[in-house]
Amino acid sequence: MTDIQKICRPTLLLDKDRCLANIKSMHKKAINNNIELRPHFKTHQSHEVGRWFRDFGINKIATSSLYMAEYFANDGWDDITVAFPTNILEIKTINTLAAKIKLNLLIQSISTLEFLKKELRYPINGFIKIDMGYNRTGIQAEDFKTLDSLILGMKNSNNINFVGFLGHSGHSYNAKGIDEIKEVHHEALDKMNTVYNQYIKEYPNISISLGDTPTCSLMNSFGCATEIRPGNFVFYDLVQEQIGSCRTEQIAVALACPIVAIHSERNEVIIFGGGIHFSKDVYLNEQYGNCYGIVVNDKGNSWSEPIDNVYLSKISQEHGVIKGSDVFIKECKIGKILKILPVHSCMTADLMKCMVTTGAKRIEMMRYRN
Amino acid sequence: MTDIQKICRPTLLLDKDRCLANIKSMHKKAINNNIELRPHFKTHQSHEVGRWFRDFGINKIATSSLYMAEYFANDGWDDITVAFPTNILEIKTINTLAAKIKLNLLIQSISTLEFLKKELRYPINGFIKIDMGYNRTGIQAEDFKTLDSLILGMKNSNNINFVGFLGHSGHSYNAKGIDEIKEVHHEALDKMNTVYNQYIKEYPNISISLGDTPTCSLMNSFGCATEIRPGNFVFYDLVQEQIGSCRTEQIAVALACPIVAIHSERNEVIIFGGGIHFSKDVYLNEQYGNCYGIVVNDKGNSWSEPIDNVYLSKISQEHGVIKGSDVFIKECKIGKILKILPVHSCMTADLMKCMVTTGAKRIEMMRYRN
Repeated sequence: MTDIQKICRPTLLLDKDRCLANIKSMHKKAINNNIELRPHFKTHQSHEVGRWFRDFGINKIATSSLYMAEYFANDGWDDITVAFPTNILEIKTINTLAAKIKLNLLIQSISTLEFLKKELRYPINGFIKIDMGYNRTGIQAEDFKTLDSLILGMKNSNNINFVGFLGHSGHSYNAKGIDEIKEVHHEALDKMNTVYNQYIKEYPNISISLGDTPTCSLMNSFGCATEIRPGNFVFYDLVQEQIGSCRTEQIAVALACPIVAIHSERNEVIIFGGGIHFSKDVYLNEQYGNCYGIVVNDKGNSWSEPIDNVYLSKISQEHGVIKGSDVFIKECKIGKILKILPVHSCMTADLMKCMVTTGAKRIEMMRYRN
Repeated sequence: MTDIQKICRPTLLLDKDRCLANIKSMHKKAINNNIELRPHFKTHQSHEVGRWFRDFGINKIATSSLYMAEYFANDGWDDITVAFPTNILEIKTINTLAAKIKLNLLIQSISTLEFLKKELRYPINGFIKIDMGYNRTGIQAEDFKTLDSLILGMKNSNNINFVGFLGHSGHSYNAKGIDEIKEVHHEALDKMNTVYNQYIKEYPNISISLGDTPTCSLMNSFGCATEIRPGNFVFYDLVQEQIGSCRTEQIAVALACPIVAIHSERNEVIIFGGGIHFSKDVYLNEQYGNCYGIVVNDKGNSWSEPIDNVYLSKISQEHGVIKGSDVFIKECKIGKILKILPVHSCMTADLMKCMVTTGAKRIEMMRYRN
């Protein structure tokens, strides 16, 4: 047990009630749509929070790397999609994982496919990555020539079982409000429909996997999709709030940071908390301009609503500069803890490497990547 | 020993020769100026690299946090300045450190001073932080009233020994070229002269500590300063190169990242290497616009010059998008390792948590902050 009152360094707080409510709500949406929820675990990166998902009966997950898949396989997860272009240099890890779990890998080039055909020692499921219009990775939905050759290649392999198509509309993060998200979502559904219609006759059990936090939070139907893979929704953050994916009160993490200096002459306080805690992710807040975090009111071990006109305006490696109203600054004292909502919870959690729940329980996260 | 040929995941490479040359050159500048070099260790965060400094006879360091001071005290460093506003909530760590090493702390408020007077169990040295015009923390140089009361407070304490003034011109990072750096430097020297002249009679052994990487790299005289505290120079990076602090060939770290996908139709390759490896720090490159890294030519276990028109144009959590010329893209293969100079080596090293030298030696870094 960690006494939450004794925080003395930047500490990532997790409000378990909010987190469970976020999981419950996404789980309900999946059930209502008769669709599988395969949560992406890159945001929380912790066995403990993973188990909260398991309590809802969820038994399939996505990760963003093979080492993250290993980390969760070590806690009993046995159906994992690595939602990242397969890194052939990690073939050893791939074979270790394929030997013990149902491993789903993304394949989007003949070169990767040929390598896997030669080097795989155990069966895996192959998803073809389709470009949803984000233009980061994936095959174009209408490029049947390439799709056919990838599918044929898998068919002719001993260890690769073609199971379907996977997409990620990362550009939903640049959208704002329900109308723009709808547009991104319909673009994705159109593209998935294209491949679905083309291959459903030959592969009637085809899987169609899509869904990021904005579309999964705001949309209510998922067309031909058989599963959704949102991740960030487990915590949400200020970017998601700005997009419209969540309300501020759904954000389940806050960084607790001590005040170390006060400069009332320029309405600023300096906190111990910088880029190595929050990350350098920034967003353009309509009211404040460039914003690295929003200070919320304290409420027992948790927090309540944002404090008007108080935000993280600058950060360097370990310093943060909080801009605040006169009233706020007057109440600041050196040694007081401020609670601050992060801009991008995935990056903040990845940096912090452990969390403390508002119930004062320490939650370990994946620590080692190398 | 780590076989550098077997890199399969994002790996931070450290060219020891370049690093030693950077240390040697700064050490020489300090000697020529008859000034103490107290390197800031927040960039490399490793016992091993710290020992390379020790080989030059350096025996005083700065850190950006108390836990980093603990980490280096554990490797025998016994004169450490924590160049960060003293976080009173960490009084337990302060007393532990003060019991065994010469601990130098920054004091810039009566509130912090009064707390320390009550709670310190062992002697420390107190530096007053002076604002060099960066406007982040520190007392104004001409605010003698506050300075007098801080000095008097230390005089009247049992365990705080007033030793001098410390400043950090963080705004040198926004400067470009020698003329702008000179301006920042002279502003700092003017401010330090103000306090020096005011207090030198009463305190003839006063310490004046200043110096960031841009000013220490480009300037050749340091006025009344008795020590300089640059940190980043040990590795340098693209921001320092743009400022003019270093030449590209002095940058001593590069991130080695595997290619996982190729999109020649848009002159892009996708690497395993994103915000959790590079950090989200970005800079405006004159040629490329927003730039997260520059790809260099491979050269054995190290690297040589940048490849024309090849740079990291976008990053997400684990993906990086490399934009490249036709010629470059043609030579790319899935599974090939690209070596990429980071924008901000402090943030990249902090994220990577370990390095591999071009001599294939694995270098551990500070891992735990909580």
